[in-house]
Parts: sequence; structure tokens; C-alpha cells
Amino acid sequence: MGGLADALIRDDEVAAHFSEEAEIAAMLRVEVALARAQAGLGIIERQAAEDIAEVSATLRPDLAAIRSGMARDGVPVPALVKALRSALGEPYGADVHKGATSQDIIDTGLMLRLQTVFGLFEERLDSVIRLIDETALDQGLTSLMAHTRMQAALPFTGADKLATWRQPLQSHRARLIQLRQDLPIQLGGPIGTGGSFGTQYRRLRADLAQALALRDAAPWHSDRTVVLDAAQAFATLTGTMGKIGQDLGLMAQAGTVALAGGGTSSAMAHKQNPVGAELLVTLARLNAGLLGTVAQSMVHENERSGAAWTLEWLVLPQMACAAGSALLRAQQVLSGLQFRATRG
Amino acid sequence: MGGLADALIRDDEVAAHFSEEAEIAAMLRVEVALARAQAGLGIIERQAAEDIAEVSATLRPDLAAIRSGMARDGVPVPALVKALRSALGEPYGADVHKGATSQDIIDTGLMLRLQTVFGLFEERLDSVIRLIDETALDQGLTSLMAHTRMQAALPFTGADKLATWRQPLQSHRARLIQLRQDLPIQLGGPIGTGGSFGTQYRRLRADLAQALALRDAAPWHSDRTVVLDAAQAFATLTGTMGKIGQDLGLMAQAGTVALAGGGTSSAMAHKQNPVGAELLVTLARLNAGLLGTVAQSMVHENERSGAAWTLEWLVLPQMACAAGSALLRAQQVLSGLQFRATRG
Amino acid sequence: MGGLADALIRDDEVAAHFSEEAEIAAMLRVEVALARAQAGLGIIERQAAEDIAEVSATLRPDLAAIRSGMARDGVPVPALVKALRSALGEPYGADVHKGATSQDIIDTGLMLRLQTVFGLFEERLDSVIRLIDETALDQGLTSLMAHTRMQAALPFTGADKLATWRQPLQSHRARLIQLRQDLPIQLGGPIGTGGSFGTQYRRLRADLAQALALRDAAPWHSDRTVVLDAAQAFATLTGTMGKIGQDLGLMAQAGTVALAGGGTSSAMAHKQNPVGAELLVTLARLNAGLLGTVAQSMVHENERSGAAWTLEWLVLPQMACAAGSALLRAQQVLSGLQFRATRG
Amino acid sequence: MGGLADALIRDDEVAAHFSEEAEIAAMLRVEVALARAQAGLGIIERQAAEDIAEVSATLRPDLAAIRSGMARDGVPVPALVKALRSALGEPYGADVHKGATSQDIIDTGLMLRLQTVFGLFEERLDSVIRLIDETALDQGLTSLMAHTRMQAALPFTGADKLATWRQPLQSHRARLIQLRQDLPIQLGGPIGTGGSFGTQYRRLRADLAQALALRDAAPWHSDRTVVLDAAQAFATLTGTMGKIGQDLGLMAQAGTVALAGGGTSSAMAHKQNPVGAELLVTLARLNAGLLGTVAQSMVHENERSGAAWTLEWLVLPQMACAAGSALLRAQQVLSGLQFRATRG
Repeated sequence: MGGLADALIRDDEVAAHFSEEAEIAAMLRVEVALARAQAGLGIIERQAAEDIAEVSATLRPDLAAIRSGMARDGVPVPALVKALRSALGEPYGADVHKGATSQDIIDTGLMLRLQTVFGLFEERLDSVIRLIDETALDQGLTSLMAHTRMQAALPFTGADKLATWRQPLQSHRARLIQLRQDLPIQLGGPIGTGGSFGTQYRRLRADLAQALALRDAAPWHSDRTVVLDAAQAFATLTGTMGKIGQDLGLMAQAGTVALAGGGTSSAMAHKQNPVGAELLVTLARLNAGLLGTVAQSMVHENERSGAAWTLEWLVLPQMACAAGSALLRAQQVLSGLQFRATRG
Repeated sequence: MGGLADALIRDDEVAAHFSEEAEIAAMLRVEVALARAQAGLGIIERQAAEDIAEVSATLRPDLAAIRSGMARDGVPVPALVKALRSALGEPYGADVHKGATSQDIIDTGLMLRLQTVFGLFEERLDSVIRLIDETALDQGLTSLMAHTRMQAALPFTGADKLATWRQPLQSHRARLIQLRQDLPIQLGGPIGTGGSFGTQYRRLRADLAQALALRDAAPWHSDRTVVLDAAQAFATLTGTMGKIGQDLGLMAQAGTVALAGGGTSSAMAHKQNPVGAELLVTLARLNAGLLGTVAQSMVHENERSGAAWTLEWLVLPQMACAAGSALLRAQQVLSGLQFRATRG
Repeated sequence: MGGLADALIRDDEVAAHFSEEAEIAAMLRVEVALARAQAGLGIIERQAAEDIAEVSATLRPDLAAIRSGMARDGVPVPALVKALRSALGEPYGADVHKGATSQDIIDTGLMLRLQTVFGLFEERLDSVIRLIDETALDQGLTSLMAHTRMQAALPFTGADKLATWRQPLQSHRARLIQLRQDLPIQLGGPIGTGGSFGTQYRRLRADLAQALALRDAAPWHSDRTVVLDAAQAFATLTGTMGKIGQDLGLMAQAGTVALAGGGTSSAMAHKQNPVGAELLVTLARLNAGLLGTVAQSMVHENERSGAAWTLEWLVLPQMACAAGSALLRAQQVLSGLQFRATRG
Repeated sequence: MGGLADALIRDDEVAAHFSEEAEIAAMLRVEVALARAQAGLGIIERQAAEDIAEVSATLRPDLAAIRSGMARDGVPVPALVKALRSALGEPYGADVHKGATSQDIIDTGLMLRLQTVFGLFEERLDSVIRLIDETALDQGLTSLMAHTRMQAALPFTGADKLATWRQPLQSHRARLIQLRQDLPIQLGGPIGTGGSFGTQYRRLRADLAQALALRDAAPWHSDRTVVLDAAQAFATLTGTMGKIGQDLGLMAQAGTVALAGGGTSSAMAHKQNPVGAELLVTLARLNAGLLGTVAQSMVHENERSGAAWTLEWLVLPQMACAAGSALLRAQQVLSGLQFRATRG
């Protein structure tokens, strides 16, 4: 958001994938792959594709022009295509973005970025799981009290507690892999029928998908299930991390856990605030709410809805960043965790 | 909710699976299957299991007692187990609910009901898809105008339009089948460690899962991903149906579709209000918001959260009913749909 | 929802105001008041208004007919007006609902019911505040530990704790009174311009408002701020009650409070689950999510949106019932509350 | 969020009030006012307050230090106070932040910024209303078709249509003024009892409130109604603007309005996409969802909740920016609006 709270939730690595530069780079990658696939099928000249690729490799379009195009058109593609064509010059200008619509480029570009982000989250999940395993090795025998419905229930061990955190993370990891391997291309042309790509449309789609390591798929311009699935993946990550954070906050209040790097208080020097644990709860509740908002954008009217689609852009990146931030914070919190055996 | 709006969204078939009777029946089914699985492993006597099954088959517990137990305990299981033990008499009273916790019974009972509900929704999706296919056969060649960003884009056909509706429904159908076949049992005992079930716990879990045609799974008392997945399945159903409804509303406003059974107006006799289409939008927005609320319940503190768990009970059934209602309404709306060719 | 969870949140008194019968009664009250106001201005005959009033007083319209009208028309008014006209007979049939549109009747009917519900909540808030005051008298000097950020902060007293609960309740009470006294009539006719009511429209609106003890207001068919304000009032009630519940749950876990009537556990006899306190949290989170959904319905397209308006009907009643239920549960929880002094 | 979508919703003027610099400036303003009020009551020396004011006037604390303090402590105040004390030197170091807690400074600082933001929105609302009035003067007699439930209802005029947009904006304007004049100070000390401020606490609070032109109020550390009210004000603004946008989108589709500056399409040169109108819908749905999330933060546990409070920081600024952006876009859209008379 730009305020001081950014310092709390900052995740530069994930944020980089949702920067203007990353969006532009991904869209150019799609335009290049499309041109190459079209050249492979003889739809455009091989030289055209090579020139488009070469120019795109070094193109740094004027950001101010892209932004003002975005503000005017509601999508960055017309301005970007114009910049690309202008850098390319003739005779291949018309071979850029041939048959495509803005949504083909933007949605496929998003899939490419999600590919990387999901992969990154798999690695971070590995780290979180490893930290849990290490804690279990070290402190698995510590005697703790299980609580149900805010009441002491029965004694159990550190290992038991850690297992309740670990298990969903493993299933989330499997889900991320599955989603990543199932990310579809978007290629449908102006009204999603593929008609603008000519008779070799199906072949073109398959080739483009293969080139981008995405799944070949019929156009999903107005079916946003893919986006909701990504949003839910982010919400399950923050949800489970939030559960861990809530547990740790409760244990901190009860004095049965010590967390490294607790925050200081401006008024009470004796306190060690479980800032990281609380933040995990915050991020969970943020993403839970945002998940509902992404779901609102499933009501995607007609063949393309500016209103519903734009809503995704305002919400999905912050969900990804919140998930990334939660994974980082969870690592930090788990690194310094020290169970304190329940007395008696 | 109980008001006149019920008449708009009523789906008795789905609602029946979330009635008090259905909840009790499902819980009894779990208790019986548990007793039988325990008898199979020699944990309780074979006669105990047979008696529990026989008594449960005809048990109609006093609803007032179950309700007041629910209001007091926050779960219906203590009162239900008491009723079952009382009907059973000695010597097998202690063999009822042996080692189990309320959550084992309630969550597994929910899975059983979701099994049926998902199956029902698969059938309804089949009907909706069939209606779309029939419409495509009849009216697929009708010339329509595609719209993107609230503007006429290019002409396409009825078949093209119908394909954008059909495609997500097919993937939702596949998802329902996958979710249904993956529904897990819940069996963890008081604190989710399985310790209360003795040394044959793993075997018991596998046997119970098989008996109930559910997936064997480690306890997920405090990991609510399964519930969120069900909620999302409901939200994707209503989301896509809402998209169809929104399209039809827009076509109705433009005069490019006629819908059978349009509503009458108290003030304007000439109108044919697209009530069913609008309702599909309403149900989509309802479920989208509720999905966010289910996601809030992922922050499930400690080994069992009364607060978070109860929230699921207040939300998931209405999401299921909304999805069921949308599937019914979609059938109704699609049955009478008549495209009107775009002029010019 | 109809399941066993109803026993947890049941509030028959509030639910009664959202029953089919209450909706119909309120709508008839509006039709009668409208007829009388029109008679007062000479728009219809005095006898017509008297007959409408007399017939309405005993009219018990066939619920099945109203429901099927609702399902067909999306609003119950055409069927209700038909029933009223049929009971009335000629020559005054045309004087029923003269100039009005369904939304005039339904929205004004809702305002009448909110009037009563707000009044009821004011009384319940009084009871809750009184219980807090009594607890402060009895246990205000008990030494407790204040907690900030899940950490013991500094000692304070029972009175200090209770003051943090009491203060928002008082401001909520003031807000309810203000909202109640500001509830507007809805009277705009088919397209919200008042044109159908003739030249005395302004006078008619003022007279109707006075008769119903509502505020005279320009038509707000497509401006749903009033409904959002009511929703927010309900969400602030449950929000504050949820804060109290969360505090009590935390105190219960720490052993610094005893709550009367704690729930029993099916597996652990030693537990006293703070069921009521947890439920307050549940209801807060339910209403928080629903508030967001009501806000979605502010995007009320054109002169009347079936989709957005119906969404209100599905959400506002459950928010009211949740608020009522929270007020009841809060009384129950506070009645038996016993602080336990923090040691040392 | 940082991506290309920022160009669509950018509102630098509002964003500036939620920047790190603005947060710090507002907090320093509170610390200075507190010191002065304490000096006025003889709690600290007059020279101390003067020195604090003088040092604060030019203090540009090291942002990196504030950010790392934020990340560690969960609040920026300890690091900021440290910077201020260090710049101030002795003997008055201990007179900075005397008796106060971080929340006093942060919440009061937020109120100061909301004061300005509300004032700005009042001005923008004036502009929007003025544009509506000008349009009514120019095009009020244009014949349009009113639509209810997505159906042509009856003819009305441009002036009638504009009146439905104007009316809620006026009531929102009145609400903003009322909220602005009612913004409270926060001054409660570590546990919200005021005890840390000594015997003149009430007087101090009144003096501080007067100095900052805020309302004197008892501490509301754990009662977040004020924040929810601000959130709702933002959501009603975007909600009404979203209604206008939805109407315009529908009129654009029907060809009954022309909007200046429509967006271009990458694939279809003939289109004039109503980008601004769609964006108003997007922002309405974004804020509606976020309102529900702010409401979740009412469950503010104990005397101060890090988790719930931080959630506000992640949500309220973007709601304010969305509201600001909607007000700007609405001006743009309304400036170029041209109704096209309905034929026939």
C-alpha cells in the first residue's frame, strides 16, 4: 500500500513478479512465443518471428506511455503492441499480436508469472516443513497441553503439535505442484472463438502451449475458475500459516512458547510481543476476505468484462504477496521457536 | 432464512441433507460404522456392534433433547450418544463412541452428506449441460452479437455463446467427482492424535474409511482445507451460473433473448422480468461472499476451535443450498430460452 | 439454516420479524396506510380506504399462492395485491396499490420491521449493559491482568475490563436509536419518479411517512445506503459481542474467568467449554462477512435491480438474527461470569 | 499494488496521506501536541514541549531505521520515539511520549489524516455533484428509457436519471462532514485506562483533543467502531459510484450514452470501451469486500490486538485510495457524458 505497514509484510521476491516490469516482460514473452508458433505454421514469415523476438529481447518500452495507455484503454496491450511495432518497424509490424486480443496476452502472461510464483512457494513450503521437522527432532518430546475449545484437554507432545501444522502444508505443496502443472494458455482472439487465428488455430494453440510449458486449453476469457483456484491456493497457504500464528500467539500468552525476535513495546519494556505470529493471523484474514472478492469476479458478463477482470488485477497480486509474506514470516517465527514444557 | 425469499431459492432436495434429521442420521451411521470396525478388530464385542447397529437403525432421538444438548454443549454429540446409550442399555453402553470425539462424528457425518450432495450436483450439472447441448442443436446457428467490455464486438453464433457457458460446467463436474472421491474420514479422538483408539488405530481408520467409502486420512481436526474446498466447489458452481444469469439479463435488456416464465410486475403489465436470470447472479454473489467467510474459519486455533468450526456450520449449508438452487434455476431458465437473432 | 446449528443461534423473537407472516403483515400495513393517505387527499374514496383497511385486518392470504407468485415474479407483491383485491371485491379493487410499485411496499415494509427490531435491540443492549454494571459492582475490584498483543501487560481491575466492553455498547445503542428514528419510507412508483401518484405526490409522501412514523424521503429505489447502514449496525453489535466473547475465551483458557453453563465434552468429562463465548466470536465473523456482501448490493443497476435487491433479502435477515442471537447469548454469558483474580 | 493496474486507479493526492512520510508526520504532530498539552498542565516543563516541537518540525527520521523497527516491533512508534529522543538529546528525552502507548500515537495520527481525507472527499463530491447538475441543465430534457429488472420500464428524462445518482452523493457528503467532525483522539496509555497520565488525565485528554481539533473521547483501543465507520463511508462512496458506473456501462451497451475518452481495443478498432465506467464498478466491488474484512477486525482481543489492528492498516488505506480514485474517475466519466435520446 505504500505506508509503514509495508515494512511488516514486504516480500520483494514475490512483489517483483507483480511489478510493471514483470508484467511487461511476461506479455512480451507471450507475443514472441505467439509469433514463433505462427511462423512455425507458416502463418507469418520466419523472419518476422525472429525480428519480433530480437526486438522484444531488448525492448524497454516507455513506461509513461504504457501507463497512459493503461489508464485510457483499461489494458496495457494496445500501447505495448504499438511500442513493439514501432521498435520493429516495417515490414513485419502487422505480424505482431496477429489474431490475438489483449486478454490472450495478459492472461497468458499472468499464467507465466504464476508458474514462477507457485514454484517459489513450493520451495518456501519446503523450508517451512524442514523447520518444523527440525523442531520436532529437537523438541518433539517436550510435554505440552492440547487445548480444545479454549480449554486444556489432555497432554500431548511437541511432535503432536507440530504434526498438526505440518500436515496441511504438505497437502498445500502437492496442490501447488498440481496447479502449476495445469496452468493453461489463453488464446481465443477478440471474441474467444479462435476464429481470428485461421484454420490452424488448434495446432497453433497446442504449439504455443508447448512453447510456454503451459497446458493447451480452450479459451477461458469469461470463465475465471483458474484465477479463483490460484486465489484459493494463496488463501489456504495464509490460512494454515494463520492457524500456526494463532496457536503461537495463544502459547505465547500462556507462556508455553518463546519466540525469537519478539517486538518491543513503547510503553512496557518487559514485553516480548509475538509480532510475527500475530502477523500470520492478519495475513490469513486479509486473504480470506480477498478470496471472497475474487469469487465475485466469477460473474464475468458477456465475452469479456472489464469490471470483473480488473477486479482480479487489484486483488490477486496482493493475495500472492500476502502468501509469500506469510511463508517468509513463518520461517522466521519457526526458526526461533522454543517450547516450554507445561508444568505439572 | 424463513421469509418469503425462501420461495425464490428453495431447494428441498439439497436442504434435506442439511436438516436435523439428516445430520443425526449421518452421525448415527458413523457411530455404527465405527463400532463395527472396532468389532472387526476385536476392540469391542461383535454383539455390541450388532446391537448398536440395530438400535441405531430405528432410533429417533428426542429432538428437543438433542437441541438443548446442542445449545449447551455447542455440539450435538454428547446428547446423541446419551440417547443412543440409553436406547441400547447395558452391557454395551461404553462401546458406543469408543475412543471418539464429537468432531470425529460430526466431520465424518458431514463428509457422508457431501458425498451425496456432490453426486446430486453432478447429475444436475449433467442436466444443465444437456439443456445447453439441446439449445445448441436447435439454435446454434442463430446469429448473435458478441460483447466485450459492454460494447458490441463481432458477430458470432448461438453455439459460440453456449460453448462459453458449457465449458466451465464440464470442468466443475470433473472437480465434483474428484472431490467426492477424495472426501476423507475424520478419526482422531479427543486431541487428534488417535491415541484413544489404542494400538490398532491405523488399521481401524482404514477399515472405517473403507466401510464408509471415504478416503483414509490422518486427523484434520484443525486443518479445514477440506471444508474450504467444498465451499469453493459450491462457489464455482454459483459463479458460473451467475455468469450465465448475467449474460441472460443483459440479453434480455437488449431484447436478444426471450426467457420462459418471466415474472410479472405489479405496476407494469408489459414487462417480462428475467427473474430466474437475476437470481443466478444473486446466488453467485451470495456464495462468493460466503466463500470468504469459510476461509476465515481456516484460522482454527489450538486442537479444536469452537468458534471457527461453528462458523462453518452456519455457512457451508447455505452455500450448498445456494448452489443447488442455482442448478435448478439454471435448468428452468435454459429450458425456455429463445435466442433472437441480432438484426443487421 | 434448518440444521442442528439452529439450536445454537436460535432467536425466535427476532426471527419472527423476518417470517413470511411478518413480511406479509408489514406489506399490508403499508398498503392500508397508502390507501388512507390517498383517501385523505381525495385521490381515492374514503370508503375505499376503509374497506381496504378492514379487509386487510383479517386477510390471511393463501401462502402457497404468495410463494408461487414470489417464485415466478421475484417479488410477492403482485400475488399479494391480487389476493387483497380479490378479498375486497369491487368497486374498490383498482384503489389498492394505486400508483405504487412492488418496491415501495417491500422496502417500506422492511423499514417497519427494522423499526421494531432496532427497538428490541435497544432493550437487549440495556440488559447487557445492566449485567455489565452489576458485574462491575460485584467484581469490579477483582485484580486482573491486562493483555496487549497476547502478552501480559500490567495489572488492572475487573471494572477496567468491563469498561472496555461497556463503552462501545453504549455508542451502539445511541446509533440504533438514531437509525430507528431516521428510517425512511419508500414511495416512488414504477420508475422512482413519483409520477404515478399524481400532482399531490409530495403531500402524499409526507402523509404516509407520518402515518407510519417513518421519515419522509425521496425515493431510494436504487440507492441502498439505508440497507447498508442497517447491516453495519448489526455487524457492530456482533463485532463488539465477538470481542467480548474472544476476551472471555482467552480468559477461560487462562483460567481467569469461570462461565456458567459451560458445555460438556463427549470425550473429556473434566472440561467446561466456553460455548457461549465462542459463539459470540462465530456470530461476529459471520456478520462481518455478510456486511461485505450487503455492500456488494450497492451496485444496484438501473432503476431497479432484481439481482442486487434479492441479495439483500438473503443476507439482511440473517444478520439481524445473528445480532439478536449474540445479544441473547451475551446476556447468558455475562449472567454467570465469575472473574478469578490473577495470582501474584 | 505496484503493477500496471496502478495506472488505472492511481490517486496520488489520497495516496500521499497514506505514505510513510505522512504517517510519520502525523505521529510527530501527535507527540508534539501531547507534549504541549502536558506542558500546559505542568506535567512536563514548558521548555521540554518547545524543544520537542522544534526538533519535530525538522526531524526526518532515518526511514530504514523506522522500517526495521516496524518489522521488529509491529509498530513504528518505538523506533520513532527513539529517533526523536536522540535528536532532542537531554535533559528532555523522558518527556517525549510521556505516559503514552504506541496505539495512542498511531490511532490519533490516523484520525488526523482521515480529517484531511474526508475534507478532500467532500470537495470531490462537490465537483461530482456540480457535474451532475451541469449535465442536468444541458441534457435534463433528453428522453431516456427507465429500466427495472433489466427490462425497459417507462420513459423518463435525463434529469430523472441524474437525480438518482445525485441524491445518495448528497447524503454521503453530509455523512463525511459528520464523521469528520466526530473523529476522536485516542489517549489511554499502555492498557487503556489513562492511569499512566496521572491525576490530570481527563484534563489532558480534553486539551489534546482541542489542540488537534478532534473529539475528546474515552480510550477506544479495543473498540474499532470508528475505523469501521470510516471504512463504511469509503464503501458507500465507491458503492454509489459503482452504481453510476454500472448504469453507464449498460447505457453504453444499449447505445444510449456516449462517454468521452473511451478505451481502444487491441483487436477491434471500432470499439469505444467504457473503461472509466467499468472501473467504478470494480472499485465498488473491491471496497465492498474490504469492508467485510475491516469488520472482521472488530474482534479485537484483549486490551490490544496486534493481529486485528494490523489488518486495519492493510485494508483501510486501500479503501480510501479506491474511494478517492472512484471520485476522480467519476468526474472524468461525467465530464464527457452525452445522453442519446431513446428512439421511438
